[in-house]
Amino acid sequence: MGYVTDSDLAPAPRFVAVIPAGGVGSRLWPLSRPDRPKFLIDLLGRGATLLQETVSRLAPLSDRVVIVTGARHRAAVLDQVPGVDPADVLAEPSPRDSMAAIALAAAVVEHRWGPAIMGSFAADQTIADDDAFAAAVATAISAAESGDIVTIGIEPTQPSTAYGYIEVGEPLASPVGAYRVAAFTEKPDAATATDMLARGGFAWNAGMFVAQTSVLLGHLDRRQPTLAAGVRDIARAWDTPEREETLARVWPTLTRISIDHALAEPVAAEGGVAVVPASLGWYDVGDFATLADVSEPDDQGVIRVAHDGPIIAVDAERPVVVGGAGRTVAVVGFDDAVVAVTDDAILV
Amino acid sequence: MGYVTDSDLAPAPRFVAVIPAGGVGSRLWPLSRPDRPKFLIDLLGRGATLLQETVSRLAPLSDRVVIVTGARHRAAVLDQVPGVDPADVLAEPSPRDSMAAIALAAAVVEHRWGPAIMGSFAADQTIADDDAFAAAVATAISAAESGDIVTIGIEPTQPSTAYGYIEVGEPLASPVGAYRVAAFTEKPDAATATDMLARGGFAWNAGMFVAQTSVLLGHLDRRQPTLAAGVRDIARAWDTPEREETLARVWPTLTRISIDHALAEPVAAEGGVAVVPASLGWYDVGDFATLADVSEPDDQGVIRVAHDGPIIAVDAERPVVVGGAGRTVAVVGFDDAVVAVTDDAILV
Repeated sequence: MGYVTDSDLAPAPRFVAVIPAGGVGSRLWPLSRPDRPKFLIDLLGRGATLLQETVSRLAPLSDRVVIVTGARHRAAVLDQVPGVDPADVLAEPSPRDSMAAIALAAAVVEHRWGPAIMGSFAADQTIADDDAFAAAVATAISAAESGDIVTIGIEPTQPSTAYGYIEVGEPLASPVGAYRVAAFTEKPDAATATDMLARGGFAWNAGMFVAQTSVLLGHLDRRQPTLAAGVRDIARAWDTPEREETLARVWPTLTRISIDHALAEPVAAEGGVAVVPASLGWYDVGDFATLADVSEPDDQGVIRVAHDGPIIAVDAERPVVVGGAGRTVAVVGFDDAVVAVTDDAILV
Repeated sequence: MGYVTDSDLAPAPRFVAVIPAGGVGSRLWPLSRPDRPKFLIDLLGRGATLLQETVSRLAPLSDRVVIVTGARHRAAVLDQVPGVDPADVLAEPSPRDSMAAIALAAAVVEHRWGPAIMGSFAADQTIADDDAFAAAVATAISAAESGDIVTIGIEPTQPSTAYGYIEVGEPLASPVGAYRVAAFTEKPDAATATDMLARGGFAWNAGMFVAQTSVLLGHLDRRQPTLAAGVRDIARAWDTPEREETLARVWPTLTRISIDHALAEPVAAEGGVAVVPASLGWYDVGDFATLADVSEPDDQGVIRVAHDGPIIAVDAERPVVVGGAGRTVAVVGFDDAVVAVTDDAILV
């Protein structure tokens, strides 16, 4: 029935890393554009794109890396990560939020290789401590073996209002380092965030989820049956000539919903989610403020990201200059200014 | 089993108007606050709150009006709409997006009075042409009798990027004025919106949905079974001493999802949604720009909303001054300024 691909010849993977690479990053305009999303650019001037860094971090920890991206970005993704089997770069016809992307990957993995443990990790995050990350993933895989959905929660370093929080409950019997999730909470206001840090027992929700494919798809069968049936139909057709027809017919009927709202939050309310808290030097590179946090100021107090030209700051504290290579940038009379420069657009 | 309420003694309604009154309106701060959401204030200075206007518009068209609101707002809602049976003002323990609110109303209506047709209409919209609205609702009710979910779509008056659009398909065999929905589209960018207006055949999605309770709950059984089972459990307990215990147990497990993503969009992709396009003088009062659109400038070109004090405009075109009663407001050197004044906060 199916084509024979490299995937068919490889041994069945025990742990598959899934990278949903879909966000356009409109809060990082003009660096990030619909035709050049943030995960495809070297946002931090480190010689690797966010996607490449994510793949490099996960490849040593997993038997396979599967990437789910928009159809228009598939060619660029393949160019950037030559080590990933092209059959493992799945193209969505249109964005339908994170649950459809992750569920599609789960269904394709299970259809191709049988039940496995998978971990989903966004392509637009940076992590400073790779060893701590590897340890957290290993603990999460172990916890997932007992049937939980397991999230890796970030130990908060400040009362951020930019992230949702996870209320950490009782420790699991095993493994050490895994806890029951008491609840997921929405992004708090500043007072609530300060209170949560003072009380302790909370972690940031970084959207990292590890689970058996059968557990994830089983919760979906129960809670989102049309979405589950849809991705299973698509997965059966994926490696056959029927892929395009099936995608065209089924994909537009899939419910748009985030994995947080479809699974993490309600399954946690039922007691089925665990968390592995970890200190990773983690950043979600969602906006310029985060970009400034991730970058070091130079000896003039200027933060440069992918900019090595002169920067003139007059009556201007802590300017952040992003992009623009060697061009001269002057910031006058504004504190905390962010100047982002590309060839055809400037944002101040 | 249940308490005897007024509701039990009334004849079974044929058409029930449901008003989800839940949005805080953070884009209208400081006029709108969590403890004083926009639907509870006289935002337009017309002597009635948005909720009161919505009830006045719907009461003549329906056999009952059911309001779903947050627990903290229930007392204020009851004060404002004395004509609504208190048993018909349903309090949610916490916000869980529009689908849970509307599904709860559907389940309570069906459990109390048996299957009916219901229409859901947000509490934060204004409509200038009540007669056109009444005609559109009547057409939508007629279309709903054949088993469709029916939305009232607004004929666009400008290429707005603030609303989702409905692609209008073929006319239904009956009633006249109802059409198949080809697709719901997300908020477009300016170029796409201009193109859609030029091509014609699109309507704004105002979030108004009319359907048989059995049709709405039937789609939910299939697409969101845990949400459907949850609201049915709650509805069975609503008029009994078990209401609080059931809410505490079940409400936190309900999936957070909008009615657009849970039903309108995917059911339209299956061919199960109809639209009645209408010109209503409709506004979604979501932000200050809309507020200015809804209000008439005075002979100095100043737009006043709930402000009758002096306004001094120097080098400032089209200032909008909202609230502040008789206080003097000066706007100097800014065009299109919006000044919103309350007792304890000023936004410029």
